[in-house]
Amino acid sequence: MSLICTGTIGIDTVYTPHGHRERVLGGSCTYFAAAASFYGSVRVVAVAGEDLPQPHRDLIARFKSIDTRGLEIRKGSKTFAWGGRYHANMNSRETLFTELGVLAEAPPSVPDAFADSEFVFLANSHPAVQAGLLARFPHRRLAVADTMDLWINSARPELDALLRRIDGLVLNYDEAELLTGKANAVAAARHVLTMGPKFVVVKKGEHGCLFVHRDGMAALPAFPSERVIDPTGAGDSFAGGMMGYLAGQAWAEPGSFRSIQSALAHGTVVASFNIESFSLDRLVTLTRAELESRFREFTGMLSVG
Amino acid sequence: MSLICTGTIGIDTVYTPHGHRERVLGGSCTYFAAAASFYGSVRVVAVAGEDLPQPHRDLIARFKSIDTRGLEIRKGSKTFAWGGRYHANMNSRETLFTELGVLAEAPPSVPDAFADSEFVFLANSHPAVQAGLLARFPHRRLAVADTMDLWINSARPELDALLRRIDGLVLNYDEAELLTGKANAVAAARHVLTMGPKFVVVKKGEHGCLFVHRDGMAALPAFPSERVIDPTGAGDSFAGGMMGYLAGQAWAEPGSFRSIQSALAHGTVVASFNIESFSLDRLVTLTRAELESRFREFTGMLSVG
Repeated sequence: MSLICTGTIGIDTVYTPHGHRERVLGGSCTYFAAAASFYGSVRVVAVAGEDLPQPHRDLIARFKSIDTRGLEIRKGSKTFAWGGRYHANMNSRETLFTELGVLAEAPPSVPDAFADSEFVFLANSHPAVQAGLLARFPHRRLAVADTMDLWINSARPELDALLRRIDGLVLNYDEAELLTGKANAVAAARHVLTMGPKFVVVKKGEHGCLFVHRDGMAALPAFPSERVIDPTGAGDSFAGGMMGYLAGQAWAEPGSFRSIQSALAHGTVVASFNIESFSLDRLVTLTRAELESRFREFTGMLSVG
Repeated sequence: MSLICTGTIGIDTVYTPHGHRERVLGGSCTYFAAAASFYGSVRVVAVAGEDLPQPHRDLIARFKSIDTRGLEIRKGSKTFAWGGRYHANMNSRETLFTELGVLAEAPPSVPDAFADSEFVFLANSHPAVQAGLLARFPHRRLAVADTMDLWINSARPELDALLRRIDGLVLNYDEAELLTGKANAVAAARHVLTMGPKFVVVKKGEHGCLFVHRDGMAALPAFPSERVIDPTGAGDSFAGGMMGYLAGQAWAEPGSFRSIQSALAHGTVVASFNIESFSLDRLVTLTRAELESRFREFTGMLSVG
């Protein structure tokens, strides 16, 4: 079934204890789509500037299942650029610079051919922009959004309005607490359910995720990784694996507790590959066989009964 | 099979955002034994002072499967006392006071009747004391120790010697990094395997645990809990559930990857009850049926395949 992601194409400069990369391909939509592409076709709606280097365009094209008809290269504009530095344990980072570029302009437009999309992921963006994009998908069966502290602090009415229209919210641990004022992650996630969504996924990085759904609750560890080279895009590739898996199955009810629960395990495994190198370097070489092998390894780790 | 724990009996004063308790029953051996008692008999080796209040002695006695022949009440001595305050999110705490009392005196003695113990847990203590106690159990089949930053920093040669003699080490996330100088938890745990133990369990509190064994690796989340009243004793009750389960089964090889992996899930579930109230208040009312019901719930959360 048709999956679509709206989000950013970015040019990232990343410093980690393992090295650094300048102006490599990044962006939420990019990571999401690369991860989701292992499960089937994925449509992207994003805008980049004329300055998006050809090698970056070529890299996106190497993911054959990404449908780039909604990827706009805007003349006279500059691509969103971000620079960050990770601290020693990779669990926290500081932003070095942010150049909004096209993100400060009109949002991307949705091709008419994408109007029938059924699985919709709204990567982190201003919630009013997310709401405007969401309205373009009247046939949606499952709509999930990401958000961040910036919008929780600066666009709360718009975020609240968005929450009433989506099925699921994914956000980071600290952001769940910020959004709800609850100091306990379970309490925070449960509180989000009163704001609209049917389910919430709290992303905890190396500590996995917490999943609270109207019909149940679960938690998953991350896949234990010794080779964390660059965590950039971990959350977006996690969401991409999750949504890609959901869109690739024939669910009677794609938003059910059990279907999301399984999908989270797939997201966890794809994300565990993504962090093994900078940019999309690992995902572009990843094979289905490697993905399936690690998925079996992961489920084996959870077989404790 | 015979399980024994060496550790402390304590009198705790605890402040949390949910309230406080003064001079309630605590101590590593107490929490461990209470948790382990749900799986079979557990021997304790610990020493308290004459001042241990009678209600505290009565509370220990309510756990029928705790064999207290190794619990010494030392005349003229004072019981170890600890005071701590938890921060808002319960993930960190500060120590308000520590009164060593009997802990500054001779260690407890091991009754001859306990010399045949096969499953040995050495709760956190000076590693030289742990090593002396360990030597009293020549028939041991599985020996596991806990340690802490204090000994990593102040008694490293003794700790290194102990590590060469035990099968498994449990320790906190930060302590694993401190012990090994590795900023990645998996790398830290793997490094510990080069120091002697066959397996390491890295405790991460609300984020569950990481398990690295010579024959494999796994991670488990904590049981998601909205009702965290007092985390004191979580690590010790976790270890008690783990060791209690192991001692209660007829393993060909109790230290195998699969046996420990299952045991960690039991430890996780017992610990999730312990944190629901102060002191041993929840464990003393806990039933086997409640324990089994939550264990099924927990394994259901991990059924993602």
